[in-house]
Amino acid sequence: MILPIFIASLLFASSSFAAVQDFCVGDLNGPEGPAGYSCKKAATVTVDDFVFSRLGAIGNTSNIIKAAVTPAFSAQFPGVNGLGISMARLDLAAGGVIPMHTHPGASEVLVVVQGSICAGFISSANAVYFKPLKKGDIMVFPQGLLHFQINSGGSPALAFVSFSSPVPGLQILDYALFGNNLPTELIALTTFLDAATIKKLKGVLGGSG
Amino acid sequence: MILPIFIASLLFASSSFAAVQDFCVGDLNGPEGPAGYSCKKAATVTVDDFVFSRLGAIGNTSNIIKAAVTPAFSAQFPGVNGLGISMARLDLAAGGVIPMHTHPGASEVLVVVQGSICAGFISSANAVYFKPLKKGDIMVFPQGLLHFQINSGGSPALAFVSFSSPVPGLQILDYALFGNNLPTELIALTTFLDAATIKKLKGVLGGSG
Amino acid sequence: MILPIFIASLLFASSSFAAVQDFCVGDLNGPEGPAGYSCKKAATVTVDDFVFSRLGAIGNTSNIIKAAVTPAFSAQFPGVNGLGISMARLDLAAGGVIPMHTHPGASEVLVVVQGSICAGFISSANAVYFKPLKKGDIMVFPQGLLHFQINSGGSPALAFVSFSSPVPGLQILDYALFGNNLPTELIALTTFLDAATIKKLKGVLGGSG
Amino acid sequence: MILPIFIASLLFASSSFAAVQDFCVGDLNGPEGPAGYSCKKAATVTVDDFVFSRLGAIGNTSNIIKAAVTPAFSAQFPGVNGLGISMARLDLAAGGVIPMHTHPGASEVLVVVQGSICAGFISSANAVYFKPLKKGDIMVFPQGLLHFQINSGGSPALAFVSFSSPVPGLQILDYALFGNNLPTELIALTTFLDAATIKKLKGVLGGSG
Amino acid sequence: MILPIFIASLLFASSSFAAVQDFCVGDLNGPEGPAGYSCKKAATVTVDDFVFSRLGAIGNTSNIIKAAVTPAFSAQFPGVNGLGISMARLDLAAGGVIPMHTHPGASEVLVVVQGSICAGFISSANAVYFKPLKKGDIMVFPQGLLHFQINSGGSPALAFVSFSSPVPGLQILDYALFGNNLPTELIALTTFLDAATIKKLKGVLGGSG
Amino acid sequence: MILPIFIASLLFASSSFAAVQDFCVGDLNGPEGPAGYSCKKAATVTVDDFVFSRLGAIGNTSNIIKAAVTPAFSAQFPGVNGLGISMARLDLAAGGVIPMHTHPGASEVLVVVQGSICAGFISSANAVYFKPLKKGDIMVFPQGLLHFQINSGGSPALAFVSFSSPVPGLQILDYALFGNNLPTELIALTTFLDAATIKKLKGVLGGSG
Repeated sequence: MILPIFIASLLFASSSFAAVQDFCVGDLNGPEGPAGYSCKKAATVTVDDFVFSRLGAIGNTSNIIKAAVTPAFSAQFPGVNGLGISMARLDLAAGGVIPMHTHPGASEVLVVVQGSICAGFISSANAVYFKPLKKGDIMVFPQGLLHFQINSGGSPALAFVSFSSPVPGLQILDYALFGNNLPTELIALTTFLDAATIKKLKGVLGGSG
Repeated sequence: MILPIFIASLLFASSSFAAVQDFCVGDLNGPEGPAGYSCKKAATVTVDDFVFSRLGAIGNTSNIIKAAVTPAFSAQFPGVNGLGISMARLDLAAGGVIPMHTHPGASEVLVVVQGSICAGFISSANAVYFKPLKKGDIMVFPQGLLHFQINSGGSPALAFVSFSSPVPGLQILDYALFGNNLPTELIALTTFLDAATIKKLKGVLGGSG
Repeated sequence: MILPIFIASLLFASSSFAAVQDFCVGDLNGPEGPAGYSCKKAATVTVDDFVFSRLGAIGNTSNIIKAAVTPAFSAQFPGVNGLGISMARLDLAAGGVIPMHTHPGASEVLVVVQGSICAGFISSANAVYFKPLKKGDIMVFPQGLLHFQINSGGSPALAFVSFSSPVPGLQILDYALFGNNLPTELIALTTFLDAATIKKLKGVLGGSG
Repeated sequence: MILPIFIASLLFASSSFAAVQDFCVGDLNGPEGPAGYSCKKAATVTVDDFVFSRLGAIGNTSNIIKAAVTPAFSAQFPGVNGLGISMARLDLAAGGVIPMHTHPGASEVLVVVQGSICAGFISSANAVYFKPLKKGDIMVFPQGLLHFQINSGGSPALAFVSFSSPVPGLQILDYALFGNNLPTELIALTTFLDAATIKKLKGVLGGSG
Repeated sequence: MILPIFIASLLFASSSFAAVQDFCVGDLNGPEGPAGYSCKKAATVTVDDFVFSRLGAIGNTSNIIKAAVTPAFSAQFPGVNGLGISMARLDLAAGGVIPMHTHPGASEVLVVVQGSICAGFISSANAVYFKPLKKGDIMVFPQGLLHFQINSGGSPALAFVSFSSPVPGLQILDYALFGNNLPTELIALTTFLDAATIKKLKGVLGGSG
Repeated sequence: MILPIFIASLLFASSSFAAVQDFCVGDLNGPEGPAGYSCKKAATVTVDDFVFSRLGAIGNTSNIIKAAVTPAFSAQFPGVNGLGISMARLDLAAGGVIPMHTHPGASEVLVVVQGSICAGFISSANAVYFKPLKKGDIMVFPQGLLHFQINSGGSPALAFVSFSSPVPGLQILDYALFGNNLPTELIALTTFLDAATIKKLKGVLGGSG
């Protein structure tokens, strides 16, 4: 029996194939729209667009929170553009903390790869959910809710977190409140914190006003 | 205790932040895609992109329907581009009517701010839902269904309407049937209206053919 | 010319119509799924399911924040279930404040109906956007970001806010941090606030731990 | 070489497989939600749930519009529940017309299988798009816009239409206006039609009021 | 009674209309994003953008599979860009087969227009669903699952298939395995086929490596 | 200054809070719909619903593929129901292989936690993308495309994979073709494999017919 060379070429005009869009590797220099970056031309896409190696390196935790987040969102890893998923690496030295934060655009799943992490979130109904996690445990954080991760062991911890969007966003509470020029008076009015506390934290976090 | 200056800068490379996309203020001159306008460059976005003042002015109701609609869709208010929401202002002078129409791309919620409005819609199952609304009442109109609003009091009425899309679309029935060049014969065939009625309304609404 | 009685009945079996789903008024007693409440039986739906009057009454602002929020989410107004939109009413007495909060599940548009309101939000990129709004101004708040509203005039202010979801959620920062049993130690570790401040606010907001 | 019996059983607990949800054949007697019908139990699903034969029979065009629509929406063909697609069959005898209508919940593609059909739609921008279609031609109608189909040949025409939703909805203009109890006065006010015309069409289409 | 000329112009600034987006006819030369092609300028859109005639011609089945697929995806028929739907034509000569394949981006509905077709698919739970279809039968294939169509009669068969996306994608199993440069060793390891079989099929389907 | 006890209780009726839906932990015994499982009653939800520990245990790789997949989809980990994300653990002993497969309902990101893995996928355009991955590398696999993972080192490898859906589905090619009762004749016709090869693999994989 003799089968055809290029059956699919017989099924379809080959020109059709070029436009089939299984993915849309982000072109960071092209126009950006509500759904993400423009697509890199298919002819220039290689396997390296789908692989990202920067999460292999430990983050620099020589800072006061003794922690580091290394993102692989579409801005860092354009291969996930349009695919509804992204990742990040969390490093927590002994005593490390990822402070209270939200991801306005995605739910998150965390897997502990090394060490112990106490993680938690607070719901709209104001219920508190937190638990110490050991190696191999996973925990899900619903979209947009305040959550945190704390190294709960005496040694470095490592976790990978995945998001339900290539653009999860990140709003770190302290940085949002105290790391910019939002006037102290407005912060006081909207948080019930006193001006002295606010000014102290603004000093620490680089805020003004 | 000394906290870090710019904690977030330690957590993330600052270059990452520039690409985080919480919003996509529409660039009306850039390419448009199925999800909306291209995003304005983040560095040029200001609070004024998120605020729209034109709904503060009463619409001109000196017309035969004694009514006016002032939209704040993404074409008028590019700040809502990509955010799944938009608004419009309805002014109805005494006797004013927003004629039968649909929004092909969004559901709508109306809130009466002044006066009385009789509003209603018709479902696919051909059920009729209408009711007089007083100040403070809200009513929801499911996506794509024929609906209308009528000033049911003796004084001017004002309502704000919100849509579940920045591009709700608007198809005013009379304008769609009689305000363009759709041939009279086709209208007659597809609506059971007689040619004389059609031609009269074409004359009134500016249609031809 | 004699036209048919019940053209549509000729086009379709009438039984088909009963199942056409333009809307899904929530049955608060039925099972709930990720997309919302179960649908009330179509035969029992009336216009009153699509109209909600509770936003017509001024909220009780006799409290320390001198403000009140009256929601018309799907839990209060089941007519919006599944329709991608909802509303709420904001009352701010003189000096009133809607404290810093997020909606994890929706973007928001606010329209000022009475008085003056200073409103603002903070982005993931830590930019601050705030502005005094006057009657008729609208402002959009992208999904999931911290935002606030403050009465910036000397008289009561009224605003209506619309959301891009029937279930926008609401997380009030102070309540999330200090109004539950999240341990003081965890709060301190994840916010950089000192224990004394936390305990004071826990006392005020009803928190324990 | 000896390969494993039931590799997948080794990969996964077989109990996991039962819950894998590639489809959700509608259980018309179960609760319905915004996303569609409840799923029939997987164990009871057979190939017959995915096949629908009623579109094979010509519709009854012995009516004044000389046309028939036979739907295969999720209410008739529960196999499409949750799958984002559905179909219908259009029969147009000589002189047959599918009157002006909208589908509030879906875009439509029509393919002419027999005869000639003049089809068209009107956009929100009030542009008119219509064209005679011959056998094999396809035409797309964007979601929610008024459109129509007319047999433009002298012999019976047949078309199949597909929709981008299992619940496209259908609102036939004349039926919505004149086939129910919407008061003549409201129709007149919102369509500019005169009362005599409205009452005549109400008589024909079975409306009252 | 004198009605207004251009009621809608009075309701809206005419400039607003130009930006109303009911559709987004693809500009194949513009930037492409995750949601599809850029939109052609509205002023240049004509009815011909919404009509596609190439499905009217029988595909060339003079090949070993005795079958042909003619797509009307957004790359061929830019009118469906952004509208959540597309089509294709299947021609199967006597003995013709559309080989095992998937559409990674869409569910499919098939309608038999001529002849007899045996169609089937395999679920994630490894259940097999197949059935001979006669003229007028429709069958739905859930997104992403392996499926096939075989001419089960002695004469040519014709079917139209619709997809729940303008970019359904297409992965023909044999072509994916044997029609490219995927190394024989990797294929053997991941499919349990022996090298001789793989190399034979690579020869037939144009693969190398 | 005296702040209110339970500010939020003053802002909202407490009954409102109970219905706020940030998440929808799956009730595996309740009705299932296209969007997922019914939600467990909020009052019964605890932190244990959001944590899953089974991925902490190494899978049993004592099988011919020397590999194991441990899923945390919504069927195993109901906490991810409705949240657009899920995970699984891959164990590959030395020489282990996850055979060619697809996920019809999700894109996937893989992170290598231990060892070396050669992973790859094939696009609709029939391009092959594969690469050896080392510890810490991540790779994304677009939705619905054939892909595989092979242990490319001499020691056990471990990876975690995340999906853009709580119900990604899984179709293992060999199991779909040879592990059920799909008739040999149909397989031969649709894959070009010869009957002897098919029957041999059916024997191995437990298929019949």
